[in-house]
Amino acid sequence: MEEILTEIVQKTESKIVLIVLDGVGGIPKDGKTELESAKTPNLDELAKKSACGLTIPVILGVTPGSGPAHLSLFGYDPIKYQIKRGVLEACGLGIELEKGDVAVRGNFATLKDGKIADRRAGRIPSEECKRLCEKINSEMKPISGIQLILYPGEEHRFVLIMRGKGLSDEIDDADPQKEGVPPKKANPLSENAKFTASVANSFIEKVDEILKDSYPANTVLLRGFSKYPTIPSMKDLYILTSVAIAHYPMYKGLARIVGMDVIDVGPYMNELYRALKENFQKYDFFYLHVKKTDSYGEDGNFESKIKIIEEFDSILPEILSLNPDVLVITSDHSTPSLLKAHSWHPNPFLLYSKWERHGGSERFTEKECRKGTLGIFYAKDAILLMLANALKLKKFGA
Amino acid sequence: MEEILTEIVQKTESKIVLIVLDGVGGIPKDGKTELESAKTPNLDELAKKSACGLTIPVILGVTPGSGPAHLSLFGYDPIKYQIKRGVLEACGLGIELEKGDVAVRGNFATLKDGKIADRRAGRIPSEECKRLCEKINSEMKPISGIQLILYPGEEHRFVLIMRGKGLSDEIDDADPQKEGVPPKKANPLSENAKFTASVANSFIEKVDEILKDSYPANTVLLRGFSKYPTIPSMKDLYILTSVAIAHYPMYKGLARIVGMDVIDVGPYMNELYRALKENFQKYDFFYLHVKKTDSYGEDGNFESKIKIIEEFDSILPEILSLNPDVLVITSDHSTPSLLKAHSWHPNPFLLYSKWERHGGSERFTEKECRKGTLGIFYAKDAILLMLANALKLKKFGA
Repeated sequence: MEEILTEIVQKTESKIVLIVLDGVGGIPKDGKTELESAKTPNLDELAKKSACGLTIPVILGVTPGSGPAHLSLFGYDPIKYQIKRGVLEACGLGIELEKGDVAVRGNFATLKDGKIADRRAGRIPSEECKRLCEKINSEMKPISGIQLILYPGEEHRFVLIMRGKGLSDEIDDADPQKEGVPPKKANPLSENAKFTASVANSFIEKVDEILKDSYPANTVLLRGFSKYPTIPSMKDLYILTSVAIAHYPMYKGLARIVGMDVIDVGPYMNELYRALKENFQKYDFFYLHVKKTDSYGEDGNFESKIKIIEEFDSILPEILSLNPDVLVITSDHSTPSLLKAHSWHPNPFLLYSKWERHGGSERFTEKECRKGTLGIFYAKDAILLMLANALKLKKFGA
Repeated sequence: MEEILTEIVQKTESKIVLIVLDGVGGIPKDGKTELESAKTPNLDELAKKSACGLTIPVILGVTPGSGPAHLSLFGYDPIKYQIKRGVLEACGLGIELEKGDVAVRGNFATLKDGKIADRRAGRIPSEECKRLCEKINSEMKPISGIQLILYPGEEHRFVLIMRGKGLSDEIDDADPQKEGVPPKKANPLSENAKFTASVANSFIEKVDEILKDSYPANTVLLRGFSKYPTIPSMKDLYILTSVAIAHYPMYKGLARIVGMDVIDVGPYMNELYRALKENFQKYDFFYLHVKKTDSYGEDGNFESKIKIIEEFDSILPEILSLNPDVLVITSDHSTPSLLKAHSWHPNPFLLYSKWERHGGSERFTEKECRKGTLGIFYAKDAILLMLANALKLKKFGA
């Protein structure tokens, strides 16, 4: 696919808007899913005029995390391009990573009598986490030429960036995963990773010295060592000038990894529209992320998930008033309230464009999208439909 | 797929007829596509008794040229088997290529003060192009054992066939692509191609001598050097004795590439039927090509495309009266009149056979085929359905 794309993709002025209602797909409760229960006059009307279908996020039956689910929607094979957790966390904190960096998830923890007494150091306040990170950053010197930089997260959480030459991410966690046991060193999983493991273990020793009077946060646990992935950007692949409009760090981070600009917005629905409108002339691909459909799904809050869907429906006319050449509304994965978790179910998918065949779907729901013109297809191919409908793909072969 | 086929394919007496209504699929104008607007009582009746579906020509969203679109229908992965431009042009002119040949697209051009003054030699009339090709062919001797033969095209265009031992197509264009700059020699892109490049450059020198008094057509530009592709034949793959019944050179050329015999017919619909009837005992696979659905689509002539569909409908009973074991009616790609070009939209597909499940489709249209028993599938797999329904495939595994 990437090979063909290079041959046929072209720059045009047309605009694509991709709206991700995170986890919006569901399974029925008393006969109806969240989408089927919601009152969505605007989505209903749009569905009738659109090409609808269902997308498989990874492969049939496989439930994706946010990383693979989003990469798929951006046109990347989620099995070929895997983003590890440390990098995802770093992205989530808005850290700008460099090639070669290793990102690590960290916890402040409590060490007592040579054992890990609390893996979360009593969930210290975020302010205290920030102070401790600054203290360590100011006292920590490079170890064997490797810079070690801490970025505070929420409560006891932080991200460690290891920066310098010769790093590998093939090492296991420096975290025993339980309490009441001694700390665990990081072990190299390949010959190549011995250096990184020794730097990581020396780092923990140095931190223990620096924090020796900071009880209960007097040690750190490190896990998910991960190198910044080498992924071609959306600019490289699709000649798209792309931007993410999102509130939550994780999604902004994912967007940065594929080379999108990022516009920070608050958590409210109308802010998405406002940012889209303000930046509509500057870009040709817009990724808008709505988080709360997923959050309420995870909480098992069927009613609130319906409310968010209805709230989105109410701002849809404003988005349509911008006249994007291609508008896609879909989800990265399903999060059925009944399951209280991500699921493997295909995502409702709606594509509105004057060039696409439409018909068959009366609403934007799981069942009605199933009847649409697009059928069931892989989410990673959705970008091709968007590009085609934006007339950004030339003919393949003569 | 090719591996499995070898194991299970068998020769039988059954007959398969594949009818390609080139570019027949469309998008709606005032709510209806060309197929939906046409009056097609015979196709409607057949659709109700057939297995219908939609085929994706290459991959989702990708608009194919005639080459990849047809290869797909003949069962070849269009990404694996790509036919280069020079060979396609040669096919288009009806040139019968031999293995080892290199086909090249050429322009007559104007050389003035050592620079390319006009890349099209003032678009000389086709008659003049023909005269110049004949002049060169009569005066040109083989260069280092390589025969060089020109075939005139429209206006300033021609095809050069290089024939002989040791040729390669790994050379770049002998065409600066701009005017006001000196001519450009062909450069070998591999060690292996040095010989071909030197023959091509000597050829241009000889032509310049022959044409020295033919201003404005006093030199030639050569591009798209391409070798006749090595593709397993339909006989090798499917043990089919196959024949193409077509009028336009491009499609006859494509059929020859996959090893079909070719029966030349005029441009009228009833000639297709007559040739099919006359040869029905001689072959077991028949490919019939209807061109005008595509031509009118490209012209944006919605009404005339409808007329051609209706004309085809009128000869369908005669084709059915031959009782083929498997009859497929489909398209290589869509050519919506509204787009005036090939498109990425899946093709309506109808398979009539007494062994296939049918139902769901009331007509042979984009929407009704979507409801058929076959769903949406890749065009390159259609041959398997044809072979299966002709009972030419044995059980796979025990």
